[in-house]
Amino acid sequence: MTWFYEHYKGVSAVGVHTEKLLHESSSKFQSIKVFETTGHGRLLTLDDMVMLTELDEFVYHELLSHLALCAHPSPAQVLVVGGGDGGCVREVLKHPSVERVVQCEIDEAVTRVCQEFIPSVAGGLADPRCELVFADAVRYVREHPATFDVILVDSTEPIGPAEALFGADFFGDIRRALRPGGIVTAQAESPFYAPEVVRGLFAAVRPLFRHVHPYMGFIPTYPSGAWTFLFASDEASPADIRGEALDALDARYVNAAVATGAFALPAFARDLAGSPG
Amino acid sequence: MTWFYEHYKGVSAVGVHTEKLLHESSSKFQSIKVFETTGHGRLLTLDDMVMLTELDEFVYHELLSHLALCAHPSPAQVLVVGGGDGGCVREVLKHPSVERVVQCEIDEAVTRVCQEFIPSVAGGLADPRCELVFADAVRYVREHPATFDVILVDSTEPIGPAEALFGADFFGDIRRALRPGGIVTAQAESPFYAPEVVRGLFAAVRPLFRHVHPYMGFIPTYPSGAWTFLFASDEASPADIRGEALDALDARYVNAAVATGAFALPAFARDLAGSPG
Repeated sequence: MTWFYEHYKGVSAVGVHTEKLLHESSSKFQSIKVFETTGHGRLLTLDDMVMLTELDEFVYHELLSHLALCAHPSPAQVLVVGGGDGGCVREVLKHPSVERVVQCEIDEAVTRVCQEFIPSVAGGLADPRCELVFADAVRYVREHPATFDVILVDSTEPIGPAEALFGADFFGDIRRALRPGGIVTAQAESPFYAPEVVRGLFAAVRPLFRHVHPYMGFIPTYPSGAWTFLFASDEASPADIRGEALDALDARYVNAAVATGAFALPAFARDLAGSPG
Repeated sequence: MTWFYEHYKGVSAVGVHTEKLLHESSSKFQSIKVFETTGHGRLLTLDDMVMLTELDEFVYHELLSHLALCAHPSPAQVLVVGGGDGGCVREVLKHPSVERVVQCEIDEAVTRVCQEFIPSVAGGLADPRCELVFADAVRYVREHPATFDVILVDSTEPIGPAEALFGADFFGDIRRALRPGGIVTAQAESPFYAPEVVRGLFAAVRPLFRHVHPYMGFIPTYPSGAWTFLFASDEASPADIRGEALDALDARYVNAAVATGAFALPAFARDLAGSPG
């Protein structure tokens, strides 16, 4: 068929060769498309930005989920903020201690499209331990204090509805929504192309938690392919991540070596995120 | 002006927005172009493949150079195979123990174009410690046994003239060109989009050296943004990399944490490269 390009800030682009447009719709919040691609499996875009491809979504979903879940001694209650595609839920359900995972996504249409067209990612949403909430996560988090052991912030870019998910108010509410020993991880954009987002997020979150650490992973279809994540907790630090638990997942990305390696940031990215505490 | 795209294997693409074509020529070996870009500084392409941009070339050149140079107790004689742009030489010259660095590039035109249009990268080539050789590196390496402390294989993709630089014969000659305690590093393509190259290179090199280790770095303008490198030596292992020497470089990418973190490969990439030895 043709090339799909995501152009980023007028300076860089990522391209994925597509075979067929399988779905196209407009929800109350955004345009939603699913393509069959030549080499990336299926591709989901929101407002023409790549959300995931089946080739590399494992990197994002494993990194956002498992490091936090393996740093907590026994996560039972988990919240996914955003993440309407279901990829984080799929990974969370691999942890036997999890009793309930809530996916709080503002746009139900994203979830329904993924359930129909990308079942390899959304399949876990039918699990009885998964509770689907279609609502504004900012309000949901505020209304559920002391509820969750782990919160995964799987947001879109900090423009439009997701902008609030990068601020100090939201992360203050996140902290209150955690139970003792709780941990939050969040996606934090590209240190090459969105350094101001990385800097702003860490500056906002650092005063809120005792431990705040950046980590990174390789995500080919996101701008720059280099993605930052945030790990924050009052009790747990990256040193608490149980490497043997990561190895036992037999995952495609995370393993015991990555538990420390992902936190070994390049100098320029470490400078953006400030000193770990 | 317009977008420059490198399309990779008909499945993925990287795009860089350009302002102006500064240079275009055809050498005996390849087409050479230099663009002024909107957000990446200057861009060098060979046969329409991205060789470097000024935004992210530091990642590639620092990773290929400094880990080997800081694993060797006192590198004096260094060879850069390929690397006609001069980026590796620039990094090598930051090590005071280096007495001579030979850049053996098959295509003199690449070096001359970079000296004229990308002096931020090629500037070090005028240093008196640098010796420029324009010749086939396969033959040069074979004819210089027991000569170098560190060899950096800065090749293009394994097609055309660079294909031989990914084989067992060449790395056998590399091993013989090293002095006792010598170390070689090489670029090793993308584990996402060229897994067969990663697998083939490590399978070829593993029997030749006592220590063979893969490592990785974030390079936004290369296909997938995730790049593999090879570290091999009979004496030195990654555990010998002096973290304090990396920190002392005050570099933009490498630091003491990266000295171990870069070797912490994602599970799927570790599988491609085989078990470290």
